[in-house]
Amino acid sequence: MASTPGHLHKCTDTVVNPVKTTVHFTVADKVGALDECLGAIKAMNVSLTRIESRPSKTPEWDYEFFVDFDAGSIEQVAEVAKTLEKLAKQVHVVGTGGIPAVQLTGIGGQESTPWFPRKMVDLDTFADKVLEMGEELDADHPGAKDAVYRARRAEITNIAKTYKTGQSIPKVDYTQVEIDTWTTVYNKLATMFPSHACREHQYVFPLLIQNCGYQPGKIPQLETVSRFLKDCTGFTLRPVMGLLTSRDFLNGLAFRVFHSTQYIRHHSKPLYTPEPDVCHELLGHVPLFADPDFADFSQEIGLASLGASDGDIERLATIYWFTVEFGICRQDNELRAYGAGLLSSFGELEYCLSDKPEIRPFEPAKVAQQKYPITEYQPVYFVADSFKDAQMKVREFANTCSRPFTVRYNAYTESIEILDSKEKVLRYAQNIKQDMLTLVDALEKLK
Amino acid sequence: MASTPGHLHKCTDTVVNPVKTTVHFTVADKVGALDECLGAIKAMNVSLTRIESRPSKTPEWDYEFFVDFDAGSIEQVAEVAKTLEKLAKQVHVVGTGGIPAVQLTGIGGQESTPWFPRKMVDLDTFADKVLEMGEELDADHPGAKDAVYRARRAEITNIAKTYKTGQSIPKVDYTQVEIDTWTTVYNKLATMFPSHACREHQYVFPLLIQNCGYQPGKIPQLETVSRFLKDCTGFTLRPVMGLLTSRDFLNGLAFRVFHSTQYIRHHSKPLYTPEPDVCHELLGHVPLFADPDFADFSQEIGLASLGASDGDIERLATIYWFTVEFGICRQDNELRAYGAGLLSSFGELEYCLSDKPEIRPFEPAKVAQQKYPITEYQPVYFVADSFKDAQMKVREFANTCSRPFTVRYNAYTESIEILDSKEKVLRYAQNIKQDMLTLVDALEKLK
Amino acid sequence: MASTPGHLHKCTDTVVNPVKTTVHFTVADKVGALDECLGAIKAMNVSLTRIESRPSKTPEWDYEFFVDFDAGSIEQVAEVAKTLEKLAKQVHVVGTGGIPAVQLTGIGGQESTPWFPRKMVDLDTFADKVLEMGEELDADHPGAKDAVYRARRAEITNIAKTYKTGQSIPKVDYTQVEIDTWTTVYNKLATMFPSHACREHQYVFPLLIQNCGYQPGKIPQLETVSRFLKDCTGFTLRPVMGLLTSRDFLNGLAFRVFHSTQYIRHHSKPLYTPEPDVCHELLGHVPLFADPDFADFSQEIGLASLGASDGDIERLATIYWFTVEFGICRQDNELRAYGAGLLSSFGELEYCLSDKPEIRPFEPAKVAQQKYPITEYQPVYFVADSFKDAQMKVREFANTCSRPFTVRYNAYTESIEILDSKEKVLRYAQNIKQDMLTLVDALEKLK
Amino acid sequence: MASTPGHLHKCTDTVVNPVKTTVHFTVADKVGALDECLGAIKAMNVSLTRIESRPSKTPEWDYEFFVDFDAGSIEQVAEVAKTLEKLAKQVHVVGTGGIPAVQLTGIGGQESTPWFPRKMVDLDTFADKVLEMGEELDADHPGAKDAVYRARRAEITNIAKTYKTGQSIPKVDYTQVEIDTWTTVYNKLATMFPSHACREHQYVFPLLIQNCGYQPGKIPQLETVSRFLKDCTGFTLRPVMGLLTSRDFLNGLAFRVFHSTQYIRHHSKPLYTPEPDVCHELLGHVPLFADPDFADFSQEIGLASLGASDGDIERLATIYWFTVEFGICRQDNELRAYGAGLLSSFGELEYCLSDKPEIRPFEPAKVAQQKYPITEYQPVYFVADSFKDAQMKVREFANTCSRPFTVRYNAYTESIEILDSKEKVLRYAQNIKQDMLTLVDALEKLK
Repeated sequence: MASTPGHLHKCTDTVVNPVKTTVHFTVADKVGALDECLGAIKAMNVSLTRIESRPSKTPEWDYEFFVDFDAGSIEQVAEVAKTLEKLAKQVHVVGTGGIPAVQLTGIGGQESTPWFPRKMVDLDTFADKVLEMGEELDADHPGAKDAVYRARRAEITNIAKTYKTGQSIPKVDYTQVEIDTWTTVYNKLATMFPSHACREHQYVFPLLIQNCGYQPGKIPQLETVSRFLKDCTGFTLRPVMGLLTSRDFLNGLAFRVFHSTQYIRHHSKPLYTPEPDVCHELLGHVPLFADPDFADFSQEIGLASLGASDGDIERLATIYWFTVEFGICRQDNELRAYGAGLLSSFGELEYCLSDKPEIRPFEPAKVAQQKYPITEYQPVYFVADSFKDAQMKVREFANTCSRPFTVRYNAYTESIEILDSKEKVLRYAQNIKQDMLTLVDALEKLK
Repeated sequence: MASTPGHLHKCTDTVVNPVKTTVHFTVADKVGALDECLGAIKAMNVSLTRIESRPSKTPEWDYEFFVDFDAGSIEQVAEVAKTLEKLAKQVHVVGTGGIPAVQLTGIGGQESTPWFPRKMVDLDTFADKVLEMGEELDADHPGAKDAVYRARRAEITNIAKTYKTGQSIPKVDYTQVEIDTWTTVYNKLATMFPSHACREHQYVFPLLIQNCGYQPGKIPQLETVSRFLKDCTGFTLRPVMGLLTSRDFLNGLAFRVFHSTQYIRHHSKPLYTPEPDVCHELLGHVPLFADPDFADFSQEIGLASLGASDGDIERLATIYWFTVEFGICRQDNELRAYGAGLLSSFGELEYCLSDKPEIRPFEPAKVAQQKYPITEYQPVYFVADSFKDAQMKVREFANTCSRPFTVRYNAYTESIEILDSKEKVLRYAQNIKQDMLTLVDALEKLK
Repeated sequence: MASTPGHLHKCTDTVVNPVKTTVHFTVADKVGALDECLGAIKAMNVSLTRIESRPSKTPEWDYEFFVDFDAGSIEQVAEVAKTLEKLAKQVHVVGTGGIPAVQLTGIGGQESTPWFPRKMVDLDTFADKVLEMGEELDADHPGAKDAVYRARRAEITNIAKTYKTGQSIPKVDYTQVEIDTWTTVYNKLATMFPSHACREHQYVFPLLIQNCGYQPGKIPQLETVSRFLKDCTGFTLRPVMGLLTSRDFLNGLAFRVFHSTQYIRHHSKPLYTPEPDVCHELLGHVPLFADPDFADFSQEIGLASLGASDGDIERLATIYWFTVEFGICRQDNELRAYGAGLLSSFGELEYCLSDKPEIRPFEPAKVAQQKYPITEYQPVYFVADSFKDAQMKVREFANTCSRPFTVRYNAYTESIEILDSKEKVLRYAQNIKQDMLTLVDALEKLK
Repeated sequence: MASTPGHLHKCTDTVVNPVKTTVHFTVADKVGALDECLGAIKAMNVSLTRIESRPSKTPEWDYEFFVDFDAGSIEQVAEVAKTLEKLAKQVHVVGTGGIPAVQLTGIGGQESTPWFPRKMVDLDTFADKVLEMGEELDADHPGAKDAVYRARRAEITNIAKTYKTGQSIPKVDYTQVEIDTWTTVYNKLATMFPSHACREHQYVFPLLIQNCGYQPGKIPQLETVSRFLKDCTGFTLRPVMGLLTSRDFLNGLAFRVFHSTQYIRHHSKPLYTPEPDVCHELLGHVPLFADPDFADFSQEIGLASLGASDGDIERLATIYWFTVEFGICRQDNELRAYGAGLLSSFGELEYCLSDKPEIRPFEPAKVAQQKYPITEYQPVYFVADSFKDAQMKVREFANTCSRPFTVRYNAYTESIEILDSKEKVLRYAQNIKQDMLTLVDALEKLK
């Protein structure tokens, strides 16, 4: 009875219309420039969802504009871009939905890039785009025909549907049936962790017991766990209705945001679930996200996914599958599981460390090509030496992807910076310089 | 009629009993170690306000404990420390309130350090410690005898009293009288900014109009402004009842948190206020905190203040006074104001750029010794070359302070890290290494 | 007619007696300490070859001593170490010749490390240790029975025998027969380079013509070429009698020193040589060492070889063989040769880019295990993406080696620093900090 | 009887004709480009002193040319520049001798910069430009009328006259009279060092005794001392005939080269000399150059002097005077001398630490303006906190100078790099990245 969370088995975006588009441009600082630009934008016949103007400390004191709108057609995007090119400098179009990127090339002076979240609040737009099981269940789901279960599940996913960045995650009062399911899973897995889970998982688990109330008989609240993770590594949980697209899910990791379900599997089969549930998240994923190296590794995948081509998204999703979900590692000359898909599945956790599956070294270029089943045990696992090492390898792999720009995450502003101008690179270098000053201070005072 | 916000004119902590104390220690990872330690702590006869255990990725997989309690006496602190030394490694006592530090030296194996916030949520403890005017007003306050004004002021400060980290700042529905006061101040100052304010202030002001609704006839809400600042530099506003101690106020800056009043001055004298008010904050401070270099500079003062001696706090508060409140700078060979005390005071803004006051170069060691009046115009101002330059100078000044450890702010975890072990320095160096990899990537792709 | 330079086909040190040993220790700064220590060293019954005392800027102002001696037996080394432990701190024994390292473990408080050069002048000791063909020739050498050739060869290798660090490389007046051999090789290869050599080789070659007099009819002098390389990348040539051990040869690369032969192959077979000669060096190796990325890559192998175990030396020598000697790379979707063994061999240069040999990606862990023939064309070649990429991969490979310390090359002092104390790491961090300051300055001024 | 070495009391270049000029330009890599360019240069009617072509790893694989010639007039420089602009990209003229810089502005597309050495061999050109006492002596020199002394002095300075970069410094067989002078000075000063010299000087002195043969009765050879310094900090000595211009002298420090006299003062007044001599160099300067922080500090002044305006050279020379020659520092709450002018002068060494002179803190902007006498004791001294601190201050001062580019010294190639293109900045950033990788490795392995 495999648990196959399958977060990521749909690897391409669902094409929806109209498509979310961001236009980013720069306006020279002069009297009235901001108002003139704003007026022109509002005069355009598009459905604006956001207009923001921000400082961009260039030597010319330019202003940056970020305008989001729902484009009905490629022609409309092109029209907007052309209007803005008369008013502004460096007009960039990001995100073209189903419109072939090649058609947009040249508009805004550069190749079109798939849309990606620039600020943490942009993750709010993902809620509407759940792939499947968001509101109904597949036929093979143990709760598919249980109207009470489905109503309860919808009640809980409604939290995710309306959740906005910055809010506390609302508490769920789990029913006794739900708690019993949790207790069954908890007790079963807790006995296996000492012999099957990786060192990092075993190290963090007692902290979750002490600080977040992990125990049989009580399902921990996401908010409590999210705050604990924030303290440890800056990761936070964000409630999700069900499966996101690979692109959206991976993009979240760039912000150290993990989309987590809040409902629980059907009580009829406590040791099985065809979709991720709160047991999978809390017992499988959460302990690892408290580890700094694993957090860095996960964010590295997320950063590589921002604005990546569809092909690169598929490759990164495969790497995610074989690490964060189904990864194993070697510690003290023994194989141990660190993937959440394994750590939350009684059967596969035993199987994966046996001599039945094939074991290969973690080489991202090869992992990215590996096919995998989503409804049965994996025939192949990949073994990482360490999360630091895996991070470096993912970074190198990402460098072979075709994205023409470099991004960094700014944890102060909770936003992605595109390092595509001398000023931005300089500012980043100044930060590193300050860090080096602090590092040297610390080394000097170290005993 | 000078506006003398005087955030900082009380430079020492009020001694209160019992005193907030944090004990920080490390426990080796072994079965039951966490529970044993927790049990021993709870068995002690102290008033515990927080117990947290966290991962600390040492080679030995130790756990870190942070225990806050209200100590009644030096003996009690010593007793707690001794009990813990039997159970744990590296017991550090931070914060001793009115207890002379020298008496504690040796307990926990190191000198006692004044208490300081380690996590952003620790700022919640400041609310109770407002110095003066928190709930009542000085005799010279224009609203001192206006019962309606005092009641309204108390109503608004109650927001700050109950505010907790992570919450949105509640909206205030300002009355027409309040709005008229704002409008008078706004109109008066807006005419002066083009000729008196520094370039950074003038650059950001139109953005505040466009994004935060700055205008006559409407007082912007702190929450709106705080979100804008977060986007720009990661600074956030936090409502405050009135004057904090210098230590608490400066400590907040280390987290890029600016404590801001939310009430407005008395309508009888719209161009005067003896205390900071929302006009001072929004028109004086806010535009500068949107500037990356000024934000770095302000945080640098904040970081230097963490755990600093009382004398160093006084020196840093004086530097703060002559920069963030009353600083002037030279731009294009003209003097311009960047201090909020100047930018929010019609009279002093004119005076400070005239030939009446004395002008000296900004040298922190000298600035720190300068006496200043708080109820009249400053006789001396100090001129900074740039905020980057001022930041470097403050950093150098801070290095001459006596604090025996180095801190960094981790924006991911919103916490202060004390870089006092090889593991922490190593982890920091690893971050810098990752940043250098990203910087080189960006430079390679730069056209 | 394969040219098989075979620099490196002997991968283990020849055991000779007595063995070169360095003892490194630290003496506290106090009156007379230096003299007392020196006296004790001289009183020991060992054959001292060097005594140096140097500053070591620790907080305690310790002095560092480096004492070289020729040890007759393991007992003698142990005796010296014990004597010094009474006088000094941190006694380290480096280099034990044929003595099994395990026997020495514990003497000097740490595991024994194979001897390696710490300063550039230490390379002077390699001259005596040439493996074969140093003074006589194998039977299959075309000049083996030509007494005139052998005498001439000995005359030229005598320069290498007596050469000392810092000297100019003496000029050789090549005979007309020698020049004719050069001309034949030069003309033959020069026609092949445009279609077979990598971009870097083709780019540098005209510079060697213009600056170093590369041309038919004249053999360039090593000194001229060495000065050119010094200007380009800091690499220098050093005359060598013949084949060094792999360890010695690779160790030289850590100093950006390339050991180069100065004699030329036998005139009877101008397109063949069983050993490296001046044609191989000047036409194959030299152009690549003028490339900064290739220079970095080569030094990386060298640094990894310092104090490496015999097994790691063999692995690194194999990597050297498949890159610096027989490497090919992909440029503009075509395979090109960059290995000197290929670039100086008419036949193999053609063969290696044909479809006959097997081509595999450059993965150091696999390359290091690959067996290779030394007297015929290679059946397998490894393809590098870029020298930068190859350098990173070698660095990662080196991290998997067992050496317990980290080294850096200090180009100012032309010496290797072992970064095994907080002070040394701190000083290095201070340098990096200074570099970051300079980098930020440069970025600020960049247009 | 003050010793006033006065290396630097002439602060402006002597104008000589014809003037040394370097033209630096870039040629695109295409067949025959190098030869065409070389031909055009040779066809010009100028007296060429050097033509070098070198690789410059741009994405376009350009070649860099460096052409030195002796220009007879501004018109000739302009003519050369114009000719080259037809053939090449980025033509830069460096060095215009007595020609006003303003007249050249625009030629080569940028402002004219005073000539400076780019490679260590360029220092060879300084030998001809000794200011005074190079070959004859002032009237007040104790040896002015001693024909034997003057002949002996000329004999020794002849070594400097013909010395070339890379050579060993020839040994001088000092006469018994000379040795006696040395012994008198040595014995007198050695008794004062323990109570007057800074900690660094006292720490290194015993090492000079042990490694370089410092002692009464024997004058150490410059070559021996230079090799010792090279080992310690990479500084080397270079023989000089007498006083260089400030510009040349300071420029040498950028390469960690210290121009040192080799002759000794007149035996009639062993405790007095109006010019630097071997006693001043060996007893005053040398011990400090063995200290890493002092070496960094000295090089920082040197780097700031490259291509600096005449005014900035004068300011830097004044800073040099008040530090390297006449600097004092505070150690363990006592004043100590570190300037060589003090450490080699019996009288002033006593005076400077007494309560007679005025003592001020080391602030480069103020030091640079201070006037000073060269024939009597200094009335004012400046006190440094540490050499690290002094270095940072000099760097900040240098940032206020007007030079429009940033330089770094590349110790591998022994040359100055001008970081004025993205490629050069990128390459530098790549080096820093490699250093960070090594630093993290070292920290990981640190116990």
